[in-house]
Amino acid sequence: MISREQLIQQIKQKKSFLCVGLDTDIDKIPAFLKQYPDPIFEFNKRIIDATRDLCVAYKPNAAFYEKHGVKGLQSLIATSRYLPEDCLSIIDAKRGDLGNTSEMYAKAFFDEASSGMSFDSITVSPYMGSDSVMSYLAYPDKWVIILALTSSIGSKDFQYLHTGEGYLYEAVIKKANTWAGADRIMYVVGATKSLEFVDIRKIAPDHFLLVPGVGAQGGSLEEVCRYGMNKDCGLIVNASRSIIYASNGEDFAEAARAEALKVQQQMQVELEKAGVI
Amino acid sequence: MISREQLIQQIKQKKSFLCVGLDTDIDKIPAFLKQYPDPIFEFNKRIIDATRDLCVAYKPNAAFYEKHGVKGLQSLIATSRYLPEDCLSIIDAKRGDLGNTSEMYAKAFFDEASSGMSFDSITVSPYMGSDSVMSYLAYPDKWVIILALTSSIGSKDFQYLHTGEGYLYEAVIKKANTWAGADRIMYVVGATKSLEFVDIRKIAPDHFLLVPGVGAQGGSLEEVCRYGMNKDCGLIVNASRSIIYASNGEDFAEAARAEALKVQQQMQVELEKAGVI
Repeated sequence: MISREQLIQQIKQKKSFLCVGLDTDIDKIPAFLKQYPDPIFEFNKRIIDATRDLCVAYKPNAAFYEKHGVKGLQSLIATSRYLPEDCLSIIDAKRGDLGNTSEMYAKAFFDEASSGMSFDSITVSPYMGSDSVMSYLAYPDKWVIILALTSSIGSKDFQYLHTGEGYLYEAVIKKANTWAGADRIMYVVGATKSLEFVDIRKIAPDHFLLVPGVGAQGGSLEEVCRYGMNKDCGLIVNASRSIIYASNGEDFAEAARAEALKVQQQMQVELEKAGVI
Repeated sequence: MISREQLIQQIKQKKSFLCVGLDTDIDKIPAFLKQYPDPIFEFNKRIIDATRDLCVAYKPNAAFYEKHGVKGLQSLIATSRYLPEDCLSIIDAKRGDLGNTSEMYAKAFFDEASSGMSFDSITVSPYMGSDSVMSYLAYPDKWVIILALTSSIGSKDFQYLHTGEGYLYEAVIKKANTWAGADRIMYVVGATKSLEFVDIRKIAPDHFLLVPGVGAQGGSLEEVCRYGMNKDCGLIVNASRSIIYASNGEDFAEAARAEALKVQQQMQVELEKAGVI
């Protein structure tokens, strides 16, 4: 559990708004880890140990674990339990469904007694509307992170459709703003969309935005900050592959730390520039 | 694996286009099942045995299994392996994500060697566009079932937004029609939307539509058929709670069969009325 105030405090203390994406792929982790009973967890554990003072959030991508069936879920559960309490834990699951089904997903990801996992937040696809979100919001102190504008090529298919409420992604933000405030909802906005941050900040000035797409996907941290940062920072920028696969030798954790440190130092510059710290 | 032709043949043979939704909730199944090592699978097994000649599809709702963590996933895997080959197996998972992530979800639900599960089809949320769908379509003979118009209250939030391509749900169908044909893609259309079927049939005359919301959610089978049926039937109508929870005593499987039979008989009337059989 990490509140908005605690998150802001963490950002100021660590001079970082980095989220490390745990998109852990068995085919990409160092070969020597395969001697361990749970190589994926072993990898994550060492990545976490090496980066926890440099980042404010971790985001396992559910798909990478589900791929391996029961074994993968065990790795995800072990990882969720190992995540440090001072970091926001995000399960990148993109579940969105009817109310009674979303209740079940909420138990899956928020209720340790039910599933073995308790993340602080979950990413949700908004297509099915309020139903998709309300069941998660019923958990006090948990966050819902709603897809608004994503960074992939497919984002053009629907997210930029003109609606009576602006582009679809703007309509999503405006509507979701009526469901809860900036202390319970965040939005996903891809890093490759720098100029759109300007319009998004008009309708979501205070919200935290979870920003994937810096690093391997080509987004610029400086541009994201120029257009997206607010007085509390208001950004959590995710990097996955560029950090966790910085090396695939025995030094992978140190290499990940070096890469995370580089990002943290850039973030410190941006936080100072904007007067957040 | 079940092709479009095989599905149509099954419908004609069984005189049914029923999908039994396996939204199996531990709190709602008969108490005596709790003596079994895997009560959820035991319940599903008996429901399947009792209904397999009356339906053409089964649809486990992933959330109900994920809720229970590793145990739940084991129940889902066991259920997936027990599903009869002559029925379309649908995992109702509503996953939609970037290309490389959707690839992982495809392995989770389509690739038995990877995850232990191989469903014929998956429901997908379209918000992220083509990326969400292409990785699933890469599996020949598998189906993608795209959310178009859902039956919940939240469907009003975005699906009815006016876009340059009609309502958002129409824009989704038109765009998805360019990704693959009626032999690979189906659309979810809620049963409470009878009149909208008319417009949907104008842009998707040949597609199968997966129709939840008959039964517990109040949709009318007759209306769905009047407006939605095409010459090949073109409908798979799902019922979950009304069938699987028809009784919560020791006779639950017989009660489920009786309820499924009632629906099948109504479906036979509709198929005859429309000249499909």
